[in-house]
Amino acid sequence: MPTRLQPVQLTPTGVVLIDQTTLPARLSHQTITTTAGMIEAIQTMVVRGAPAIGIAGAFGVVLAARQALGSPTFVGDVYAAADQLADARPTAVNLMWAINQMTTCLDACVSQDQTPQAIIQQLTTTAQAILAQDIAMNQAMGQYGKVVVPVGARILTHCNAGALATGGYGTALGVIRAAFADDPTISVFADETRPRQQGARLTTWELAQDGIPVTLVSDGMCASLMSSGLVDVVIVGADRIAANGDTANKIGTHTVALVAKAFGVPFYVAAPYSTFDPTLPTGEGIPIEFRPDDEMTTINGERICANGVGVYNPSFDVTPAQLITGIITEKGIARPNYGDSLNQWRRPYGPVSIKQAIA
Amino acid sequence: MPTRLQPVQLTPTGVVLIDQTTLPARLSHQTITTTAGMIEAIQTMVVRGAPAIGIAGAFGVVLAARQALGSPTFVGDVYAAADQLADARPTAVNLMWAINQMTTCLDACVSQDQTPQAIIQQLTTTAQAILAQDIAMNQAMGQYGKVVVPVGARILTHCNAGALATGGYGTALGVIRAAFADDPTISVFADETRPRQQGARLTTWELAQDGIPVTLVSDGMCASLMSSGLVDVVIVGADRIAANGDTANKIGTHTVALVAKAFGVPFYVAAPYSTFDPTLPTGEGIPIEFRPDDEMTTINGERICANGVGVYNPSFDVTPAQLITGIITEKGIARPNYGDSLNQWRRPYGPVSIKQAIA
Repeated sequence: MPTRLQPVQLTPTGVVLIDQTTLPARLSHQTITTTAGMIEAIQTMVVRGAPAIGIAGAFGVVLAARQALGSPTFVGDVYAAADQLADARPTAVNLMWAINQMTTCLDACVSQDQTPQAIIQQLTTTAQAILAQDIAMNQAMGQYGKVVVPVGARILTHCNAGALATGGYGTALGVIRAAFADDPTISVFADETRPRQQGARLTTWELAQDGIPVTLVSDGMCASLMSSGLVDVVIVGADRIAANGDTANKIGTHTVALVAKAFGVPFYVAAPYSTFDPTLPTGEGIPIEFRPDDEMTTINGERICANGVGVYNPSFDVTPAQLITGIITEKGIARPNYGDSLNQWRRPYGPVSIKQAIA
Repeated sequence: MPTRLQPVQLTPTGVVLIDQTTLPARLSHQTITTTAGMIEAIQTMVVRGAPAIGIAGAFGVVLAARQALGSPTFVGDVYAAADQLADARPTAVNLMWAINQMTTCLDACVSQDQTPQAIIQQLTTTAQAILAQDIAMNQAMGQYGKVVVPVGARILTHCNAGALATGGYGTALGVIRAAFADDPTISVFADETRPRQQGARLTTWELAQDGIPVTLVSDGMCASLMSSGLVDVVIVGADRIAANGDTANKIGTHTVALVAKAFGVPFYVAAPYSTFDPTLPTGEGIPIEFRPDDEMTTINGERICANGVGVYNPSFDVTPAQLITGIITEKGIARPNYGDSLNQWRRPYGPVSIKQAIA
C-alpha cells in the first residue's frame, strides 16, 4: 500500500503539489496551472527529489497542452514547453527522462494526426502512467532492497529520498518502509542535509508520519556515529547514475560514502532504473547544479555569516562506484561491476516508451 | 601583533566577554562578575573555544576571590568555586589545566599564609599570565605552522579556532593569520559547523575582519571540495589530545579527517601544548559532552524537524592520530609517532606552574 503522501497530483484545475518549502511547520499545497508556474515550482524546490520532479515535469507538459488548446501553433507550443521544463534543473536525469516519455507520446500523436483534445488525453494518460509506474517501482525497490537491512538495523540516510521525493512511496525511504513493515525494531538516523535541510525538514517529518523511529543528526556526525558502531547500513537516493555506477546525489552523500567505507558500513543507493544515464560512461560528465548563495548564508531570514564572504553551493556531489555496495532498483540489486550488472537490465526496457515499459 | 579581537578581558568591574552568541549580527559584550555567571557563560557558549574557556575559567577564579573577600571561609570559597568552574564543560582539557594553574597558585599563597588581598593579586597575576601566554603561544604556533601552508593554498578549517576561541590570535586561524601575513594569495574554506554554526557565524566574521578571503561551505561538502582539487591543506583546532595523538575537536572534525585521508590532503591540528592530556593513553578516554536537543532541532526560533524525533548531539568527536599529518604547537610541529614527539617536549614545562612556564 502506498503511503498517503502524494507530492504531485493532477486535477482538472491544475497540478496540486505539496509545498515542500513549508514543512515541517505546516502541510500546505500549491495548485500549478501553467508551464511557467511548474518551472518555478521545480526551481524553487516546492517540488523536489529526482523522481518527483520527473513526474511534475510530465504533468507540466499536460498543463502546457491545456494552455495551448485553441492555439494555432498547438503542437509547437507543447514541444517548446517540454524543452523549457526539461531545462528547469540540470542534474536529475529523471526529469529529462520523463519529458522524453512525454515528447515520444507527442511524436506518436502527431504522426497519427490526432486532435489537440486527443493529444491532451494521450499526454495525460502517459503522465499518469509515469506516476503510477513510479509508485510501483518504489514498491518493487522496497521488496528487493529490504533484504540488505539487517534485523534491528540502525540505518543512516541523507537528504529525503522518500514519498515526498517520488510519486508517493520513496526510494531509500521506500526500502526503509518495506523493511519496517517486516521488522518494527529498525530505526533511522536522518542527516540534516544542509543547506536546504531536507533531511531535518522532510525525512524526519515523513518517517514520523509512519511511526518509524528517527533520530536527527547533522551532516558532520557520520564519523562520530560510525566510530561508535551506531550505523549498520547507509541507504540514499540518486539523481543520476552513470553507466559505471558513479552516482550523483544530494551534496554531502560522497562524504558519507567515504566515511562508511572507512568503517566497513555497507552503502546502498536506491533509485529507479530511469536514474541511469547510459550516455555517460562515468560520473565526470554529470552536470552539477550550483544553487543561490542565500541558501547557505541565510536561515529563516537571519544572516548566519559575515557579509562579503564567498559561497560554494553545489547542490549535488558524485559518489564513485567503488564506494557503493549495491544499487537497489525495481529490477533487483545491481552489484559491482555496475557496467555489467546494469547492462543486463537494459532490456526489455531501456530507452523505450513508458507505454511499452508498463505494458 | 595580536589581532584586536579580545574575547576575554579582566577589568576592575568584572570579566568582559565578547558575546559569541550574537555574532555575526552584532558585536556585543557581557560583563561577568560572579562565578555562577562565568559558569553560565561557559555553558551557554557566550565564551567558547578550548583555550578561551581556559582563560575565562582562570578569570572566574579571580571573580570568586573578589566575591569571597571578607568571608570567614575565603580560601575554602575560592577552592570550591575553582572546582565548580573546572566542571563547567567536560571535553576541553584547557579548562581543567587553567584551573589547575590557579589552584597551584592558591596552594602557594596559602602555604605562605598570605592575606586575601594578596591572594587576589597573585591569582590575578597568574590569570593574566595565562592570557598573555596564550597569545604568545598562538603566535609561536603561527610561526611554526605557516610552513605547512603552500603558496596560494586553499585551506579548509572546521568550527572556529581563532582569536575568538583563544586569548586573541587563534590556533588554526593563528596559523592562517601568520601564513597570510607572508602570502596574501591564500584563502580559506570555512565549514559551517552545525549545530552551533561557529564556522559560519564566527570564522567567516573573524577572517573578514582581517581581510582574509573566506568561502562558506556546509559540513557535508568536504568530499565535493576535495574531489574537485579545491583544498590544499586542512587545519583545525583541538579540545583535548591524548598521549598517542588522538584528538577531540568539534563534532564533524573526524569526518573531515577521513575525507582528507581519502584524497591525500594533509590534515593538521593546531593547539597549545596544554591541550595534551598525558593521563589518557588514547582518545577513548576523552569525555564527550552531549549538548541540548534544541541546538539541533531549532534555528532562530523555528523548529526544523518533526516533533517527537530523537536527537544525537555530541559536541565533539575524536579523530584518530593516524589521520593527523602533524600537530602544530608553540614548541614546534609534532609528527607521528605522536607519543614520542610529544614526550620530547614534556620538559621543561609539562605539569608545572604557569609562573615557571612563562619565566
